[in-house]
Amino acid sequence: MLKHLFAALDRIRPAETVSAHCDGPCGIYDPASARITAEAVRSMTGKMLALPAPDPTDPKTVATYHNTMARYAKIKEEQAEETKHHLLVLWTDYFKPQHLEDYPDLHDTFWQAAKLCSACKVELSPEHCDELVAAVENIHDIFWATKNRKVEWQLAG
Amino acid sequence: MLKHLFAALDRIRPAETVSAHCDGPCGIYDPASARITAEAVRSMTGKMLALPAPDPTDPKTVATYHNTMARYAKIKEEQAEETKHHLLVLWTDYFKPQHLEDYPDLHDTFWQAAKLCSACKVELSPEHCDELVAAVENIHDIFWATKNRKVEWQLAG
Amino acid sequence: MLKHLFAALDRIRPAETVSAHCDGPCGIYDPASARITAEAVRSMTGKMLALPAPDPTDPKTVATYHNTMARYAKIKEEQAEETKHHLLVLWTDYFKPQHLEDYPDLHDTFWQAAKLCSACKVELSPEHCDELVAAVENIHDIFWATKNRKVEWQLAG
Amino acid sequence: MLKHLFAALDRIRPAETVSAHCDGPCGIYDPASARITAEAVRSMTGKMLALPAPDPTDPKTVATYHNTMARYAKIKEEQAEETKHHLLVLWTDYFKPQHLEDYPDLHDTFWQAAKLCSACKVELSPEHCDELVAAVENIHDIFWATKNRKVEWQLAG
Amino acid sequence: MLKHLFAALDRIRPAETVSAHCDGPCGIYDPASARITAEAVRSMTGKMLALPAPDPTDPKTVATYHNTMARYAKIKEEQAEETKHHLLVLWTDYFKPQHLEDYPDLHDTFWQAAKLCSACKVELSPEHCDELVAAVENIHDIFWATKNRKVEWQLAG
Amino acid sequence: MLKHLFAALDRIRPAETVSAHCDGPCGIYDPASARITAEAVRSMTGKMLALPAPDPTDPKTVATYHNTMARYAKIKEEQAEETKHHLLVLWTDYFKPQHLEDYPDLHDTFWQAAKLCSACKVELSPEHCDELVAAVENIHDIFWATKNRKVEWQLAG
Repeated sequence: MLKHLFAALDRIRPAETVSAHCDGPCGIYDPASARITAEAVRSMTGKMLALPAPDPTDPKTVATYHNTMARYAKIKEEQAEETKHHLLVLWTDYFKPQHLEDYPDLHDTFWQAAKLCSACKVELSPEHCDELVAAVENIHDIFWATKNRKVEWQLAG
Repeated sequence: MLKHLFAALDRIRPAETVSAHCDGPCGIYDPASARITAEAVRSMTGKMLALPAPDPTDPKTVATYHNTMARYAKIKEEQAEETKHHLLVLWTDYFKPQHLEDYPDLHDTFWQAAKLCSACKVELSPEHCDELVAAVENIHDIFWATKNRKVEWQLAG
Repeated sequence: MLKHLFAALDRIRPAETVSAHCDGPCGIYDPASARITAEAVRSMTGKMLALPAPDPTDPKTVATYHNTMARYAKIKEEQAEETKHHLLVLWTDYFKPQHLEDYPDLHDTFWQAAKLCSACKVELSPEHCDELVAAVENIHDIFWATKNRKVEWQLAG
Repeated sequence: MLKHLFAALDRIRPAETVSAHCDGPCGIYDPASARITAEAVRSMTGKMLALPAPDPTDPKTVATYHNTMARYAKIKEEQAEETKHHLLVLWTDYFKPQHLEDYPDLHDTFWQAAKLCSACKVELSPEHCDELVAAVENIHDIFWATKNRKVEWQLAG
Repeated sequence: MLKHLFAALDRIRPAETVSAHCDGPCGIYDPASARITAEAVRSMTGKMLALPAPDPTDPKTVATYHNTMARYAKIKEEQAEETKHHLLVLWTDYFKPQHLEDYPDLHDTFWQAAKLCSACKVELSPEHCDELVAAVENIHDIFWATKNRKVEWQLAG
Repeated sequence: MLKHLFAALDRIRPAETVSAHCDGPCGIYDPASARITAEAVRSMTGKMLALPAPDPTDPKTVATYHNTMARYAKIKEEQAEETKHHLLVLWTDYFKPQHLEDYPDLHDTFWQAAKLCSACKVELSPEHCDELVAAVENIHDIFWATKNRKVEWQLAG
């Protein structure tokens, strides 16, 4: 069935390209989207680990601590989900069968990166956050190499 | 005013049906959407009640406990909201005036089910989660009966 | 560059107006949207501060406390974000260059109101919540004055 | 089963009320949310019916017409969905069993209003838009009557 | 790097499992979510192809045609995106390295299914819609086989 | 009132900084988010203007044309809205009163950029798309200057 699908996809791509104005792939893809949200996941993880415990005898401080932890967890969850989404858009829409020849590990590369996003939701692990940022950097390198462009990897944080 | 609205809605339905390709109601409705998210609400409630308390002298464990609780609460909240949404789509879009003859309690059935979704947000109650899943099963039975189809009720979890 | 943009925006507005059916600005704008969500932020802040601490020896009560705090924080965060969004829609879409003549502080008024939305996410401060509601009331007054209408400020809560 | 659910819901409401800071129902409810979005649905419907046909020999005008129609339809769809959502929040969260005694048609009132939201998505009907706004006004009257408050019905557009 | 990640992920899974209440994988996964939305994509595609052209001399009919096409395209786009999302959640969160032994084509299976979701956004192709539904059925078979359960494949439409 | 708010905001910022792990502003801000979505708006505008008219005698081609136009308009609308959102996050959360001394036109800079986002929704104007990208570049320059960093402006498309 896979061959059938490949053939079917090949048939539809030209139509898409005809309607496009850009000479490369028709969309605007940029791993910087995933890089920014991955940096945010790392930042929130660091903040959660650094937040000092509240004075248990001061109800307002306890409530504020809960507020801060809950919203940091929420932001981290959403940024990790966005990172996963940005990465999977690259995998499903930008990368094409011909890229697999140069990057035979492409599927596993994205699978591991996506699983790291999930791990960074579950845990407060600076190590896995670093690995996630490194995984995005690796994809940044692959992506720009396929476009024969040299784009520097620059962190915002 | 109600009669006027009924008549008005009757007038517009034929137009909608003309543009549809399916012989029954024009959309794809399936109570399985609500069943899956209701199961998730029940699962998250169970996990929150089972999560062991952290060692209060270990800051990392405490922070991780907060992370887990906050994201479980967030997931439960969203799944309960989705359950409510899926149920209310059935009530407002699938069910028609003629169904009220066979199911005169239809409105209350959906009202109670929707209120259970809200209760499962507010509480950590395995009993209300079970009632929510039962309420969705009841709607599953009604729904498929109106379509004269026999579809088995199967849980994912 | 600013003058160029003003001129460009002036050129496009007439076209927008032509396609509109309303005699005033083409959209439906109403600061009540921001007022309702700002009231919700204030309500959630009050609830978080008033929530009694759980009995630390009763695991179910502790878990329920976490559930309540996390969902209140999530609701507060979302309502504050919506308040900010509703306000900035007024600032970017409703208000036009000519309004700046009558309201030279308009930009700062919205900037401060938006920053208050962020402050009410970060903190549990009844005072800042009151200031946020007051900031929305001030914008309500400005907005309806620009339309030469007298609309009463009425709180829901 | 209904009686069981009613009893169960009665049992949980007090707990919710205890944690609330407001003396009435614990949340901030206001039919103005639904009124604003219903007005937007009516405004977009009017704009779509009034949009002049493009010159078929001018490709840019044709493309702009498609852009305008598609975004007006999208905005109308989203505003109608939001109207439905705001109304159903009132029905499922604000209204309680005791309200049914004073308003025995309450369920049908909301059902018809929700169905009007769907009708205004499907059609370009100024009449049904007017009926939707009237349905929201009717709910506004019922809502504020249950709170023994007199709140004026004021349109933004 | 892959081995490192596998090992890292293995280390964190037990912690997740400990906090879970279910004896299998900790979440509620069910390919029915993707099946329902894929059916909706196929239904909308059929409706768009079947919609009769409007009378070009009747402006209201033309505007209604645009409204219907735009909202059908919007619904199709969103349902295809949801199908992709539901499938990729299975791929990134449910499936684990050990599943690759039994299903060495797993990555390509999901990649092709995700690309079919994108194709069904771009095109109005009943054939690709059928292939998408078939791809989801294939994943349904694999999924339930990994859980040693027999779940019937039943369409809603 | 403005002075009061400034003072109030100054009081809360230190608390936020204390809980942060980064030495600069506590969040991860990067104008690249707005740059990527602004490029997408420009790309979609170009595609909509370049899409060849369908053969009016071929119903399938006409329907496909409507599908393409509606989804391009939807994508453009969403990307323009995201651009606006990313820019306003910078304006309301990153920029502080002290930045106004160095950039006295800061408010107008963001107001014009936000209004350009709206203009690019309404129109199919390559000129305004270019102005939007230029406005984001200007904000990129200001942003990195306030952080004393030199970051190259690089387009993805």
